[in-house]
Amino acid sequence: MNHLENIAKFIRYYSLVISTEAGSGHPTSSLSATDLMTGLMFGGTFRYDLENPKHPNNDRLIFSKGHASPLFYSLWAAAGKVTEQELMNYRKFNSPLEGHPTPAFRYTEAATGSLGQGLSIGVGMALNAKFIDKLPYRTYVLLGDSELAEGSSWEAMEIAAFYKLNSLIGIVDVNRLGQRGETMYGHDLTVYKDRISAFGWETIVIDGHHMPQILTAFKQATESSGKPVMIIANTLKGKGISFIEDKNGWHGKALKKDELTRALKELGPVDKTIRGQIQKPNDTRPSEQKPGTANPVSYTAEKPVATRHAYGTALERILPQFPNMVVLDAEVSNSTFSEIFKAKYPERFFEMYIAEQNMVGTALGLSIRGKIPFISTFAAFFTRAFDQIRMSQYSHANIKFCGSHAGVSIGEDGSSQMGLEDIAMFRTLLDSVVLYPSDAVSAEKLVENMAKHRGTVYMRTTRKDTPILYRNNDSFSIGGSRVLKSSKVDSATVVAAGITLHEALKAYEELKKKGVFIRVIDLYSIKPIDEKILGKAAKDTGVIITVEDHFEAGGIGEAVQSALTKKPVPIYSLCVRKMPRSGKPEELLDYENISAKAIIAQVKKLTKGHKKPSKRKSVKRKR
Amino acid sequence: MNHLENIAKFIRYYSLVISTEAGSGHPTSSLSATDLMTGLMFGGTFRYDLENPKHPNNDRLIFSKGHASPLFYSLWAAAGKVTEQELMNYRKFNSPLEGHPTPAFRYTEAATGSLGQGLSIGVGMALNAKFIDKLPYRTYVLLGDSELAEGSSWEAMEIAAFYKLNSLIGIVDVNRLGQRGETMYGHDLTVYKDRISAFGWETIVIDGHHMPQILTAFKQATESSGKPVMIIANTLKGKGISFIEDKNGWHGKALKKDELTRALKELGPVDKTIRGQIQKPNDTRPSEQKPGTANPVSYTAEKPVATRHAYGTALERILPQFPNMVVLDAEVSNSTFSEIFKAKYPERFFEMYIAEQNMVGTALGLSIRGKIPFISTFAAFFTRAFDQIRMSQYSHANIKFCGSHAGVSIGEDGSSQMGLEDIAMFRTLLDSVVLYPSDAVSAEKLVENMAKHRGTVYMRTTRKDTPILYRNNDSFSIGGSRVLKSSKVDSATVVAAGITLHEALKAYEELKKKGVFIRVIDLYSIKPIDEKILGKAAKDTGVIITVEDHFEAGGIGEAVQSALTKKPVPIYSLCVRKMPRSGKPEELLDYENISAKAIIAQVKKLTKGHKKPSKRKSVKRKR
Repeated sequence: MNHLENIAKFIRYYSLVISTEAGSGHPTSSLSATDLMTGLMFGGTFRYDLENPKHPNNDRLIFSKGHASPLFYSLWAAAGKVTEQELMNYRKFNSPLEGHPTPAFRYTEAATGSLGQGLSIGVGMALNAKFIDKLPYRTYVLLGDSELAEGSSWEAMEIAAFYKLNSLIGIVDVNRLGQRGETMYGHDLTVYKDRISAFGWETIVIDGHHMPQILTAFKQATESSGKPVMIIANTLKGKGISFIEDKNGWHGKALKKDELTRALKELGPVDKTIRGQIQKPNDTRPSEQKPGTANPVSYTAEKPVATRHAYGTALERILPQFPNMVVLDAEVSNSTFSEIFKAKYPERFFEMYIAEQNMVGTALGLSIRGKIPFISTFAAFFTRAFDQIRMSQYSHANIKFCGSHAGVSIGEDGSSQMGLEDIAMFRTLLDSVVLYPSDAVSAEKLVENMAKHRGTVYMRTTRKDTPILYRNNDSFSIGGSRVLKSSKVDSATVVAAGITLHEALKAYEELKKKGVFIRVIDLYSIKPIDEKILGKAAKDTGVIITVEDHFEAGGIGEAVQSALTKKPVPIYSLCVRKMPRSGKPEELLDYENISAKAIIAQVKKLTKGHKKPSKRKSVKRKR
Repeated sequence: MNHLENIAKFIRYYSLVISTEAGSGHPTSSLSATDLMTGLMFGGTFRYDLENPKHPNNDRLIFSKGHASPLFYSLWAAAGKVTEQELMNYRKFNSPLEGHPTPAFRYTEAATGSLGQGLSIGVGMALNAKFIDKLPYRTYVLLGDSELAEGSSWEAMEIAAFYKLNSLIGIVDVNRLGQRGETMYGHDLTVYKDRISAFGWETIVIDGHHMPQILTAFKQATESSGKPVMIIANTLKGKGISFIEDKNGWHGKALKKDELTRALKELGPVDKTIRGQIQKPNDTRPSEQKPGTANPVSYTAEKPVATRHAYGTALERILPQFPNMVVLDAEVSNSTFSEIFKAKYPERFFEMYIAEQNMVGTALGLSIRGKIPFISTFAAFFTRAFDQIRMSQYSHANIKFCGSHAGVSIGEDGSSQMGLEDIAMFRTLLDSVVLYPSDAVSAEKLVENMAKHRGTVYMRTTRKDTPILYRNNDSFSIGGSRVLKSSKVDSATVVAAGITLHEALKAYEELKKKGVFIRVIDLYSIKPIDEKILGKAAKDTGVIITVEDHFEAGGIGEAVQSALTKKPVPIYSLCVRKMPRSGKPEELLDYENISAKAIIAQVKKLTKGHKKPSKRKSVKRKR
């Protein structure tokens, strides 16, 4: 016990020192959870192979309250894996010890710092342990009391209870004080206990600075059967240093040099050589399946199929090739068609109910544990999880998103159900891939490429059945495009994807009758974008018209402009510019000026005064 | 009682008929809540002036389960305000009776259809009733059981309980069935009761098809003191029609013609002339203050001030001029500096804790009740509420957003805290305004314009203190820009805003020493954008460099490209392209190639080979 208290002192010492050295950071939020984390890590329950952070049997520790990073790094220092010199570079450029934990530091499971997200990531890891890898590791998540105000925390709790994730153990550090003052409930722990119990968790209320209580709680937590466990700990922010302990106004503030001197004097002598022991994990092997081969794609040109349907079919088709796939859906699997996968592989499908934030966090947890999560909902409803999506890039996520019901072409359901900003949202991510197939064949091929590609990929699918454009053996690469119509006398290039590509093809036929030729490009990969083909089209035809069932900002038009910005040609963007509403898909495409009619009008406006080419050149068609 | 049951029959009749007529819609979700809503509206508790939907004393009714729109419109038909002919145009183009309720229909309080948002809107309306207008109206919110999976529902509950909003009454229509199957809890009403009670609400559990219980519940609900009330009703989806009642597989499906015939036969004769009575509200006047005048802005050129600080100062300064202002913050008021306002006007400031989704929904409710909500958090954390932000445009919101801590220039805290996609996000909204001031004077003037402008406005502020660039009497308009440096020999135009504008000015000084001149434009209004000034600069200098502390997609670069797309010039975009990390602001600006150094390098690359102008023309400086 005395040993643990000495380790806690070591950790308090460094939490204070390194934040002062950095000139910023959250020492007080670290001090409140120091005893809890010391007890967890070095008190005999935590199992971890320090030489192998990727060991599949390691217990997982997620700091959902990521601002307690001084504590986090000091813990691993107490484990002997971070030197004092490394600690002193905390928050400095090029140090892996960033302001909030990121995977730059090898013991970080997931980047945190946007509150209320850690528990969902833990749900993903615990789902993996229980249902997929079938391993005995436990997942621990340290939470702040303030972040329980985030609805996402409660989404994670309800899903964890639903799936009976008894290997998931949360620790709430109830230090009473948020950033600018007291939380809604201060030190009233019964509020937390009542709520968390009502959400189906086992709860253990303790004094978070009393080591015997802490050790008993962790032991008890490991014995839960059937329920996730939340340890609710009464703590003091700044615990251990009288002039900051339980005092408001000290959030996110490093001590000044003289304050640090005072604090360290109060802390007393620290044994810098002290090290905590962590027990090694078992060596159980994860349940694994060998990759096989997927069946080929098979569509007939006669029968239109919605790309959303092709998405579901593809998931089911390719699982043998990608046995690490997992499919999640937010209670709309009969709309996104992930239900096709579910029907065949129910053990690899997880219903996430209408809680998109937690779905993304869970997917991140699964992705970190080596799975390939495909997650789907209406394109519009991924906006619900933009913060989780944004954060996932900092954990190098490998999540495959599919948003169905894109654009006004969904029709009668109206604006609330129309994804009109999803391309913009997913394009913002560094290194993301954004795909938007126009037919079932390309959709299936692109789903395969999603699985192959390491990183964040978003696919946008369409509600309506659309004609098959391609042959079953055509291939579609990330970063590619398809020139569907091309001649030597093209007077403009129309770049489209999804529903509007079919409008562009209709426009082509109409214009052709009048002797006007346009180039039509299927921009199925919006990011990365096919600069070469677009550049050539710009050069050949001198003008580009983009047509998209999406708002202007951040959409296909701006993506194409970005691609061509150094060799500029005029680019006309047809997109959703008026408040959308209910109606028939065709009416809405016309209303928003993104239908064949609008394309024809735009081409005519551009070619007005142009001479009809005197001699028709050979028209090259590509399928 | 019999009268109410006949009204319920009338409503069931039309819910079935109009969805079949439309060929889509959610009749079964309407039937489960028909008795509840009939009891509410026509049972004696609801107070509403049908001739005046804007009456400040009207009770408010929000259909959070917006897909029950057949019920919603049929209710108002039973009140005598929608004709059968109007009902039959349900979901048709140009009908105000859209698939999910929108303000196109005069009795809709707020557009719904993205689940889990209605209760937050209700919180805003109830806050207004209790603390601002001080009116006795009540706010009713109809919720589905499925949408309680959304964390945002629990955010709304915790805040409603915290502010003791006893005039807020929720009704959960527990019909057991979600879109693709059963909810997590089916008809286990104790789960809902326990959770909602634990969240501080009074709960009343009833049979939602038993009219006497319904009427008693509503009466009881109006008598709560100190707590919001949730009526938890056991209902059956499709109630009243045997072959769809409590059956899975009927979500969002209109009956086919022959099924409708069967259903109507079962329903029996309906009195189409029946009308329900709604009692009129009192005529209490809202508590109002007359507008006065704001003090002038007053900064001295010597002392740098962060734009986030100017935001807070401006809020406090302009309240007398805009007495309908209300300020909300998500527990970071000491970072966004809305605390300056709070200190002076605590009665107009509402702490929303770390629950951004609910903050936006609450702001929408306040906005609909005629207030001007200014809401703030870190720019990065507004991504948490993208769905609510997206939806708010369909309610014609008048919300003023302020996101602080933009970009990598926040420094040591690292990527999780950096707003790098906020411009892209807010630009997607139709008719939104996006502002990004570079100094305190322009920030203050733009906050004034935010208050004056009717609609969604986003302002991005900077963490660091930045030099004062402007005079206290300079003016800054939405859609404007400022040319800060300009000569007749400018070899390029640098367009920047916020932190990077100061980098551009540094670059200007360095380049000037070498005889190279650049035009520098302060693009403080990113949307709408000053096409005229940008167009002139493009023409004068032949090339544009945009510099922004934001990711590429949807940012300033793409906004400028969009503005110039018809008169294209080469545009070089300097923006955040590498995974950001912790470090000093200056280090990170350099690392991301958005510092003065990067601008100079880009200008040099462009002007390489260019001759130094033989004769220096007069250099016009503008402040």
